[in-house]
Amino acid sequence: MDIRQLGANLQEVRDRKPLVHNITNVVVTNFTANGLLALGASPVMAYARQEVAEIAGIAGALVLNIGTLNEVEVEAMKLAGRAANERGVPVVLDPVGAGASAYRTETARSLLDELDIAIVRGNAAEAANLIGRDWTIRGVDAGAGGGDVAELARQAALKLGCVVAITGETDYVSDGRRTAAVRGGDALLTRVTGAGCLLSSVIGAYAAVVPDPLEAAVAALAAYSAAAELAAARAGKQGPGSFQIAFLDLLWSVSPSDVERLGKVEVVEG
Amino acid sequence: MDIRQLGANLQEVRDRKPLVHNITNVVVTNFTANGLLALGASPVMAYARQEVAEIAGIAGALVLNIGTLNEVEVEAMKLAGRAANERGVPVVLDPVGAGASAYRTETARSLLDELDIAIVRGNAAEAANLIGRDWTIRGVDAGAGGGDVAELARQAALKLGCVVAITGETDYVSDGRRTAAVRGGDALLTRVTGAGCLLSSVIGAYAAVVPDPLEAAVAALAAYSAAAELAAARAGKQGPGSFQIAFLDLLWSVSPSDVERLGKVEVVEG
Amino acid sequence: MDIRQLGANLQEVRDRKPLVHNITNVVVTNFTANGLLALGASPVMAYARQEVAEIAGIAGALVLNIGTLNEVEVEAMKLAGRAANERGVPVVLDPVGAGASAYRTETARSLLDELDIAIVRGNAAEAANLIGRDWTIRGVDAGAGGGDVAELARQAALKLGCVVAITGETDYVSDGRRTAAVRGGDALLTRVTGAGCLLSSVIGAYAAVVPDPLEAAVAALAAYSAAAELAAARAGKQGPGSFQIAFLDLLWSVSPSDVERLGKVEVVEG
Repeated sequence: MDIRQLGANLQEVRDRKPLVHNITNVVVTNFTANGLLALGASPVMAYARQEVAEIAGIAGALVLNIGTLNEVEVEAMKLAGRAANERGVPVVLDPVGAGASAYRTETARSLLDELDIAIVRGNAAEAANLIGRDWTIRGVDAGAGGGDVAELARQAALKLGCVVAITGETDYVSDGRRTAAVRGGDALLTRVTGAGCLLSSVIGAYAAVVPDPLEAAVAALAAYSAAAELAAARAGKQGPGSFQIAFLDLLWSVSPSDVERLGKVEVVEG
Repeated sequence: MDIRQLGANLQEVRDRKPLVHNITNVVVTNFTANGLLALGASPVMAYARQEVAEIAGIAGALVLNIGTLNEVEVEAMKLAGRAANERGVPVVLDPVGAGASAYRTETARSLLDELDIAIVRGNAAEAANLIGRDWTIRGVDAGAGGGDVAELARQAALKLGCVVAITGETDYVSDGRRTAAVRGGDALLTRVTGAGCLLSSVIGAYAAVVPDPLEAAVAALAAYSAAAELAAARAGKQGPGSFQIAFLDLLWSVSPSDVERLGKVEVVEG
Repeated sequence: MDIRQLGANLQEVRDRKPLVHNITNVVVTNFTANGLLALGASPVMAYARQEVAEIAGIAGALVLNIGTLNEVEVEAMKLAGRAANERGVPVVLDPVGAGASAYRTETARSLLDELDIAIVRGNAAEAANLIGRDWTIRGVDAGAGGGDVAELARQAALKLGCVVAITGETDYVSDGRRTAAVRGGDALLTRVTGAGCLLSSVIGAYAAVVPDPLEAAVAALAAYSAAAELAAARAGKQGPGSFQIAFLDLLWSVSPSDVERLGKVEVVEG
């Protein structure tokens, strides 16, 4: 894992403008599309079983988000996921609320069973639930000691057979062998709905242009954190509304050198 | 009704961060979630019949909004509503567009028939339609003399057997016995889509922590009006886009003492 | 075509506050409603087959947008479209992604076959696909020489039997006999999701109050471009988030004289 690549990876996203197919929840569609456009990627939302395979097959990445799932949408996710797998298009899964209802937990697991998922991004409680581990949920975020979350990411990656990114105050990314910590960002992100969902789609944009999914996830997290820090400095005192708008502005203007300067990536293992 | 409680009630929402389950329309999901997060509550949107009872059962309040209803969603509302009723979770109904189509009027009435609704929030035309009274609709808002709206709120509360909050230039809240008027706010709220819908969800957040539904609704309206006034002072001259963002900022920063200072609550009766 | 009418047409929208019924995609519902409210129109979103005919029948215009279509929604579009046709309510079609999947292309064509569409608004690739012409897509926008797009608009209008507005760096509007070019706007619009979708709905608002659909479309494009230029001057340097908010502000504050002063409308033919 070459963490000096952070800036170059951002530039690669901007240069190649990857098409990111999102099957995501109704709360965050607009923010997700605007965030991807601001970053320089090209979002497409398509849900109908008549077209998802066709769209996923030409995309650079497919992002599946179960935030407001229903059975029709889950069927579409599987059709899109199979098409993506056949064409070698990386698939990112955001298991929103796994553990909050049995239906979400089971759906997330069945997507992991039936599809070849490249990267899972969620909070610690969601990741723990996916692998059948108890995890105390404390508020919206789910945290215990940092060391534990790193270990959870490693175990989840091993058990799920993919890269797992667990985000929180510190983010941990692991492929089971290599584990990295990404620090930074801003607490106001927890007051913006869809901040995690958009992050999963940004990881998708990176995965479309960076072959190593661990490197893609780490670079995406570092850029996201840098944009959040700069947005908080610009508008954080005003509140979460102004912060959200400044964050979209910063996804557009954050530079590769900003990301290299502000990136706080540490190799925990591997 | 102790209107001096307005500030304390806001603090209670912030301290307890109630989980508010929203089954709401596709236009306002994002704004509703961001408004609740800004205020300090914890929003969850879940629509699938496989999970709504489970989610509603652990929520502090359930908010049903028929703004873009369909038969699948109405079924989910009833499943969620029954689970909420069984667990004593207060249910808020926003009968968006009751009267604009027969389907909306009938659906709103069937929800009121089949569920134990704690609070209805709508405009005067919607409230009048729910109880089968004619009401001249003038533009988006629905208004005649102030006295009439207070009386309409009282009659609707008696007929529907719950608290009714009718919002407009002046808001009226009644449980059939006690009626209060809440003044303030800003006309720019009528240029922000979902301002009424988010208000219904904010009433849900208050109902989760304030046992008396009349007091909950009045306190929510007072906080909402105070935030709107402060937002208009900060950004109203720029237009409804900037006002909307400032309003989210103010839901985050409005203080209990702001609400007590700006709150214009008058007991009309009771 | 009297292009001096641009300012008067905007005033007409503000004075008459037309009800615009949108059956649109889940990504842009909120932005569309806020944009129409800012402009002074009255948006309504309704999707259920039980009510769409009733709502469309009382609307000033109906806007159909296939951005996240599915079979249930397409059925609702046809029900609403037939009701609008029977009542003489103008129908605007936004064929989002026609050409991106077979399902979208076929659906857009079937809506054009079965309904009397007054105005189609799309990019050059979408318009070309609707009439079975090859068109090289270059990125999000679709462009070749300006002259070609004007000719494409004319041919599409003749073949589809309605007004066709093709938007891009320069917009072209044709009814097959008369063709106009509208210049201006700002490239940041391409970084705001739903900028094209909202434009289709704004065209709907104009079509509700301006009898000639060509004049309605041209006046809507001119007002939209003027608002975008003023928004870019106010907030463009900050980025697409701030631009989006300023654009909503400007849809509210752009004046008839701004539109006449900034409007760059040229009659290409007719």
